[in-house]
Parts: sequence; C-alpha cells; structure tokens
Amino acid sequence: MIEKLIKQNRSCRRFHEDYEIDTGTLKELVNLARLSASAANLQPLKYILCCNAEKNEQIFPCLAWAAYLKGWAGPQTGERPSAYIIILGDTEIAKNFGCDHGIASQSILLGAREKGLAGCMIGAVRRKKLRDVLKIKQRFNILLVLAIGKPKEEIMIETVGNDGNVKYWRDNDGIHHVPKRNLEDIILSCH
Amino acid sequence: MIEKLIKQNRSCRRFHEDYEIDTGTLKELVNLARLSASAANLQPLKYILCCNAEKNEQIFPCLAWAAYLKGWAGPQTGERPSAYIIILGDTEIAKNFGCDHGIASQSILLGAREKGLAGCMIGAVRRKKLRDVLKIKQRFNILLVLAIGKPKEEIMIETVGNDGNVKYWRDNDGIHHVPKRNLEDIILSCH
Repeated sequence: MIEKLIKQNRSCRRFHEDYEIDTGTLKELVNLARLSASAANLQPLKYILCCNAEKNEQIFPCLAWAAYLKGWAGPQTGERPSAYIIILGDTEIAKNFGCDHGIASQSILLGAREKGLAGCMIGAVRRKKLRDVLKIKQRFNILLVLAIGKPKEEIMIETVGNDGNVKYWRDNDGIHHVPKRNLEDIILSCH
Repeated sequence: MIEKLIKQNRSCRRFHEDYEIDTGTLKELVNLARLSASAANLQPLKYILCCNAEKNEQIFPCLAWAAYLKGWAGPQTGERPSAYIIILGDTEIAKNFGCDHGIASQSILLGAREKGLAGCMIGAVRRKKLRDVLKIKQRFNILLVLAIGKPKEEIMIETVGNDGNVKYWRDNDGIHHVPKRNLEDIILSCH
C-alpha cells in the first residue's frame, strides 16, 4: 500500500489550476507533518498556507522550476499550483533544522497524493522576495515551498543508464521521465 | 489511511530483539527511499544494511539514545534493534544533502510500520567509531542511523502544555509519552 503511494507520489509541476483546494485540506496535510518525527522532538517547523488565487500569483514568481528542463520557465497560467505550503524554521526554537523539513514534506505530499492531489518540493526559492510577499519575519528561515494542485502531467520512473545521467526530461508527448538509480547501486553493503 | 500509518509510526526505542529481520525486508524498505523525491534528482544517498546479531552488537554502542530520558542509557540486551539502516551522503555526488535523508527516512519508517515493525531515526551517532566498525570510506558522510525492530513499547502522543515543554517522558508503566505542538501553534497564517 505505502509502496504504491510512494511510487505514485512523483514531483508534479503542471496542474489543473482551476481546481480549488481549501484551507481545511491544507490544514489536514500539515497535521500529518505535525504527527511526524522531529529531531529531539523540538518541532521547530512553522507553516504558512495559501490557496488564494491572488496571493498564489504573488508567490509563483518567487519559485524556480525544474532546472533540468532548459527553455521551460515553469508552468504557464492555467497549469500553476492551486495551493502552497511554505515550511519555515523557527530560529527561536532551533538553529539547525536537520532534515525535519524532509520528514514533514514527505508526510504532506504522501497525504496530498492520497487525496488525488500532487505536489513538488521547491528549494530554489527567491527567499528575499518571498519574505516580502508573505511578510515573513527574520526569525523564520524559509526552508522549502511545497506547490500543490490537481496533477496535469504524466510522470514515469525509469532506470539511470550506464552514463549515470540523473537529469529528468520531458518527451514530445509531454511525459516527464525521471531516472532513478538502481537499488544495487545505492546499497553499499549488507551485513 | 496514510494518517493512521503516520500516527502509528512513532519513534520506538525498545524492541523484541529475538525477532529476526532479513536482508530482503531491509532492501524493500530502501527501495521505498529510492523511489522518493531527491533534490535535483541527484540521489546522493547510499545505504548500509545490517541484520546480523554480531554486527548489530558492534553498531549499538555507536548510538546515543533518548537524550531526554535521564538515567536510561538505551535499550538493554534483549530489547535492542534487530536491524539497522545506515544512511550515508556520497560526497562525490553532492556536497550538501539538504533534507533528502529526512524524505528517505520517512519513507523507510512508514514502510517498516506497515510491516508491523517500528524504528527510530538516530542522529546522535559516534561517527568515527561507526566509520571504523563498518569500514565506511571518508567519501561518505554518515547522515543518520535508522534502528529497526519489532516494537516492544507503547507510545502515546499528547499535547504540549502551556509551559511549552516538548520533552518526551516515560511513566511508571513504561509508556512513552510524546508531546506534540498544537496545529494552531505551528500554522502562522492562511491566505
């Protein structure tokens, strides 16, 4: 079951933008992060939710999309995310957020996938600009932005070839291909 | 479904040590991490698996357990993990591993929970010692150790009180209590 969900949970970058997501849904997703592990149980992560079209339009230009797809500046109008969850690190609680935001993001996106949504973890963020747009205090580090929406693209996992190339690519039919390393190449040893 | 699994997936520190976990099970769990998101799809994580009692005994003293439980040095013989997954960062692939190990660990431990197992992400590791024990080359950073086994403790989530204390504690019946912040305290704003 979890294997199927993890397989289906691909980073998605084109959405049915007219599909509306409400605040209640985003809160349910953050609740999954809340119930997940946190280093020393400090729980230093804070969240800003957005599912408002006008605000979404201000958040969108703060994000860099799919660095490997040259000539594609990101989803066009009509295919942009319906919602965002911005993950912040509260520096009054911790100075180092370890991988807490990875744990939280995986919980949130698995939850989104189960609801028929999809998302993308975006680390390439114009942080100063986003801080202005959302009036984020200096106390909070901007760790990740999760873009969420109803998926409008097909994504296929394939195997990394002998050349070791891990760059995802999009074919002429718009299908997005993601090369993943073989299991035997990532397991160093078994005892 | 995923909510139930995330709720059940508590950090566990006491196990039925005599319960055997095989390499095939550990590989299935790492496969879940393999299929999960990775920043820029670089997939710089590598894994060492161990489900061998003798080797486990060498790994165990490299780990620090439950800093908040004063006077408890970690699980005693018979209650230790049956297996370990050591997550490494391959510095020939990336210099910075972002939160990839958080994403991977959450996938692995959700998979373990689904199999009736439980685990704990351990960041407090005597890295030099573990490097010696497992003959880990300098090329690899030791990011996290996942301890995995058949759970032998009851864990309850509760709410952080007004004092803001997030320290987990164990009651006289051996039940482990984990205070989690309220949802309204971690969501800064909704747009």
